[in-house]
Amino acid sequence: MKFSLIINVLTILLLIIAAFMLIPAGIALYYGETASLWAFIIPILILLPFAALSYFSTQKKRDKTLSPRDGFLLVTLAWVSASALGAFPFYLSGAIPAYTDAYFETMSGFTTTGASILTAIEGLPYSILFWRSLTHWLGGMGIVVLTVAVFPLLGIGGMQLLKAEAPGPSVDKITPKITQTAKILWLIYLGLTVIETLLLTAGGMNLFDSLTHTFGTMATGGFSVKNASVGHYDSAWVDWVITTFMILAGMNFILYFKLLTGKIRDILVDTEMKAYLTIFLAASVAITFSLVNNGVYQSFNEGLRYAAFQVASILTTTGYATTDFDLWPAFAKIVLFLMMFIGGSAGSTGGGIKVVRIVTLFKLAGRELKRFIHPRGVFHLRLNHQVLRNDIISVITGFVFLYMVALLATTVVVAFGGYDILTSFSTALVTVGNIGPGFSRVGPTMNYAFFQGWIKWFLSFAMLLGRLEIYTVLVVLTPWFWKKN
Amino acid sequence: MKFSLIINVLTILLLIIAAFMLIPAGIALYYGETASLWAFIIPILILLPFAALSYFSTQKKRDKTLSPRDGFLLVTLAWVSASALGAFPFYLSGAIPAYTDAYFETMSGFTTTGASILTAIEGLPYSILFWRSLTHWLGGMGIVVLTVAVFPLLGIGGMQLLKAEAPGPSVDKITPKITQTAKILWLIYLGLTVIETLLLTAGGMNLFDSLTHTFGTMATGGFSVKNASVGHYDSAWVDWVITTFMILAGMNFILYFKLLTGKIRDILVDTEMKAYLTIFLAASVAITFSLVNNGVYQSFNEGLRYAAFQVASILTTTGYATTDFDLWPAFAKIVLFLMMFIGGSAGSTGGGIKVVRIVTLFKLAGRELKRFIHPRGVFHLRLNHQVLRNDIISVITGFVFLYMVALLATTVVVAFGGYDILTSFSTALVTVGNIGPGFSRVGPTMNYAFFQGWIKWFLSFAMLLGRLEIYTVLVVLTPWFWKKN
Repeated sequence: MKFSLIINVLTILLLIIAAFMLIPAGIALYYGETASLWAFIIPILILLPFAALSYFSTQKKRDKTLSPRDGFLLVTLAWVSASALGAFPFYLSGAIPAYTDAYFETMSGFTTTGASILTAIEGLPYSILFWRSLTHWLGGMGIVVLTVAVFPLLGIGGMQLLKAEAPGPSVDKITPKITQTAKILWLIYLGLTVIETLLLTAGGMNLFDSLTHTFGTMATGGFSVKNASVGHYDSAWVDWVITTFMILAGMNFILYFKLLTGKIRDILVDTEMKAYLTIFLAASVAITFSLVNNGVYQSFNEGLRYAAFQVASILTTTGYATTDFDLWPAFAKIVLFLMMFIGGSAGSTGGGIKVVRIVTLFKLAGRELKRFIHPRGVFHLRLNHQVLRNDIISVITGFVFLYMVALLATTVVVAFGGYDILTSFSTALVTVGNIGPGFSRVGPTMNYAFFQGWIKWFLSFAMLLGRLEIYTVLVVLTPWFWKKN
Repeated sequence: MKFSLIINVLTILLLIIAAFMLIPAGIALYYGETASLWAFIIPILILLPFAALSYFSTQKKRDKTLSPRDGFLLVTLAWVSASALGAFPFYLSGAIPAYTDAYFETMSGFTTTGASILTAIEGLPYSILFWRSLTHWLGGMGIVVLTVAVFPLLGIGGMQLLKAEAPGPSVDKITPKITQTAKILWLIYLGLTVIETLLLTAGGMNLFDSLTHTFGTMATGGFSVKNASVGHYDSAWVDWVITTFMILAGMNFILYFKLLTGKIRDILVDTEMKAYLTIFLAASVAITFSLVNNGVYQSFNEGLRYAAFQVASILTTTGYATTDFDLWPAFAKIVLFLMMFIGGSAGSTGGGIKVVRIVTLFKLAGRELKRFIHPRGVFHLRLNHQVLRNDIISVITGFVFLYMVALLATTVVVAFGGYDILTSFSTALVTVGNIGPGFSRVGPTMNYAFFQGWIKWFLSFAMLLGRLEIYTVLVVLTPWFWKKN
């Protein structure tokens, strides 16, 4: 394990985050929020000497190749330490008096979950609210780069097809490729952010609200600056803009890259995208009928507006709400419950199991059924016209199983705190799945403040586990990882 | 497809069931239950000419080899037609006035589920209650023979290891083996039934109650002749006897065969058995502490008695209750909820996913974690010292995925009837898993009478799906099955 190199990279990462903290610091200065201003400045000032020390003490190392093993540790520690640093402004400003709560909120931000311990959001300083939404945006960007450029090298994620193209696990070799890919992804992400912000302001939303909600949308995060979430604006324009951009953020960013380079045909054959959009449309229409039939909304159009928003929000694991869906008819709620098991696309900012994995398992199950009828037949699984290798299928099935185990384990831990089955199970679904709001005591009008401290720490871990595709974190926790060989 | 041969075998099966209906008919005669007596005799009388006709019209066929494809159809139709016939006594006697309800109750019996639509059990005629419990016992026996002797030939079930030993899919070749295996299994099943009945009578239970509860135990069914289920007797002796025999019924019957032939070492290395007993003990102790800490019971011993009974009942998918566990503390309930995802051992009368499949998936997930650390390593999955072939792993992972899909699909169907998430999801868990009682509106003191007719038909299908290891039924429903090739 190259600990000094890992510390080196982590230091750079923390410095980048500190640099981004200067933006809310500027906002604090502008609005005269003195306590918040210091809450941003102090952690930066404390970080700097340590960063300098660790940077220069590890600088002399010549060997700059990271093994996959180093990669797992680095990625896990990146989220853990970013949250530890990012929690300080909340804590020091007094916006969130307990560090446990501040850490939970920040981990929820960087993992783009959107589960909040805040009971009243609207009274908080602008700088603090901005920072809260910015953690989403940074976390979302981090995840796109990670899943598209880094995870395939580690063999993780729904996009192992790319693994064959990757040149190998040496940083020297992959750096140019990662840097180049990351730069393009960054521009796409930034471009979509600018467009959504403009569209929201065009609908009459002020710049601050537009920016923060765009951060929450593009990262499929879900933090809002309003107590009533997006429902606060009660605007069909706002709802449809955010619905559209949640769906866009839940798509594989590689597709935008292909769009820019004119590979339209590649996009049209993309199995995951077709399944993702089909699920979105089918679930939206099903819920619309349930809502209109039960008299929750009077017209199909109005029902569709709320249904499509909520389906997009849950399917992409964003977690915004325009109404209290926990009060919807049983069938509408069950469809949302189903969406919680799916998640966004691979290579998007969305969390959850991911559509591509579910498609793969359906294909696997279909193949097994066919094999019972033709026991001597040979059936390959194909995705986007490419044959899926057996080892990739194993990684995917192992993932989905571990995801289920993580769900049930989180359910048990929450229940140990004394909560009912529905609260415990839906808390597990929406933290491991990085969604945010669930049902019952974690419903869309509720928050996570009431949980015991140790449950909040465990849920922070559950959010991290889900966000880093389970394997990354679990690998680091196995005894094999720490054995010298 | 050899339809005439399939009809031939089905006819024999229905005649066997009709023969067993003579036992409750005798009980009806003894107790002077005239309406019930006719309710058993009439279906037999109607069946006989049809049986004779179909038997002789198909008798001339010389080709007696059944393909695996014929096997899938035969097994599925066996449960469907046995339930159709077995429902008549309930319906004709007036014990269950609607045929939909009678069919549900009978399918619940033959699939050893134990979900009941009866609101008051104790007022029913002895003959009807005996027949109700006998459907469990017959269904349990059918499942043991099926999973140990027939499914391996079809490539289904957790016991594909046996497939290699099987001589091939021709009835002529396999008949001696199946007949021989079936005979031994029958004797083991009968022997355990006799011992449990004797032990229950020794505890002061009358012969009728002892026999019917033994049927429900050995089949891991769960139908009781008392409204309060086993809790009615309020006897530690009865509770511990039934706990022990539920656990015995949830073990692989091959192990008893090995015990009889002195292969003790084979039993001791059995991974599934060790995991199964470990789960039972760990869950029992965890629930005991939860019950005692929350003051539900005063002593560890008393808590253990209720905890062990309920864990055995849910884990083995029996469904008996000695108390209303839906009123237990949150943590105790969640542990039971977890047990609902596991099920008994392969080759037992228990339903659910089965311990061996869950063990396999844990091993698979562990291997994937290891492979991230040693990407060039080759790791074989082993079970009982034997390497698991890749195609067997695929069958297992496909199974678990389809099981989850079946759970969620059943949840959606039930919710469509207007029921809450917990009722819908736990109804799915306990019907697909062949358990019986769940939580909320299908809790242990509740019943299934309130569901709409179409939901009862769907749940009958869900019980069948789970009982026949998903694949058997699904294969028959695919278009590939009906294509000529």
